[in-house]
Amino acid sequence: MGIFSKPIKSLDDLFMHTLQDMYYAENQIAKNLPTMVQKANDPQLKQGFQTHLTETQNQIKRLDQVFQVLGERPKGVTCQAMDGILAEAKEVMSDVADTDVADAAMLSSAQAVEHYEITRYGTLIALARQLGKTQCVGPLEQNLEEEKATDKKLTALAESRINRKAA
Amino acid sequence: MGIFSKPIKSLDDLFMHTLQDMYYAENQIAKNLPTMVQKANDPQLKQGFQTHLTETQNQIKRLDQVFQVLGERPKGVTCQAMDGILAEAKEVMSDVADTDVADAAMLSSAQAVEHYEITRYGTLIALARQLGKTQCVGPLEQNLEEEKATDKKLTALAESRINRKAA
Repeated sequence: MGIFSKPIKSLDDLFMHTLQDMYYAENQIAKNLPTMVQKANDPQLKQGFQTHLTETQNQIKRLDQVFQVLGERPKGVTCQAMDGILAEAKEVMSDVADTDVADAAMLSSAQAVEHYEITRYGTLIALARQLGKTQCVGPLEQNLEEEKATDKKLTALAESRINRKAA
Repeated sequence: MGIFSKPIKSLDDLFMHTLQDMYYAENQIAKNLPTMVQKANDPQLKQGFQTHLTETQNQIKRLDQVFQVLGERPKGVTCQAMDGILAEAKEVMSDVADTDVADAAMLSSAQAVEHYEITRYGTLIALARQLGKTQCVGPLEQNLEEEKATDKKLTALAESRINRKAA
């Protein structure tokens, strides 16, 4: 939570804070994905990151819709968790010369990103239902399903690497 | 990755780094869970955190076993992602006076922690298989299954809150 963000006193505040947290997180991901597209060596991984960049841009638009439904201006608050995941990803990547190791490290980082999003969208949907914000549920569920599908694709890629290595 | 940790040049290094990252993360969780046990208001949530504290202590012992199999001394490296998740949890919690909101915030934070662990254990198992470190797979899979079960319990608790609220 940013220093200047609103104190959390109610479930409504917690919902808004988590929404702003995800808005910041999605925008940070959109900013970082082009580097991952560039650095990925495996053509499937490269394509996967490219597809997810387009998805992320659409997910940001869906969050804009959610803010609009709530009559609020879209705004992010610093998400220390996503900053930590991305900082760790960059630090690990900065050392790696071998292309196979670089791909494995990027796969791992990308899955950490997806899982963070899966958990936060899960929370947002639960809170939206609890608070009766039914119009918010649809776009949030679409984002959640896309993140889950991306995580599954990344798992399949990780497994195909193992099979390839074992062959 | 800590400043003094070993550069990552091979898949073996990536595996060891991720293992040390999780060793640090599990120890940080063990350190923070007693406060969550204390602060939780819902008796099921309190009990859930208490159970997970015992599980976490056993998970650390399983990581000790993995280090032993590899002939390495158990050691952690700073995990910026877990630090970020926990810092965010503390910041959100510090504002909350209402017990219902506090529980919802703790539920959300705990699920973010679980998802981080699920993704990293998934990566560790995939890398262990790829590297032929078969003796490491069992304890890592036990930890992964426990984290998944905890996340499911937390989701069930979140859903029961929604149903209670709707009743």
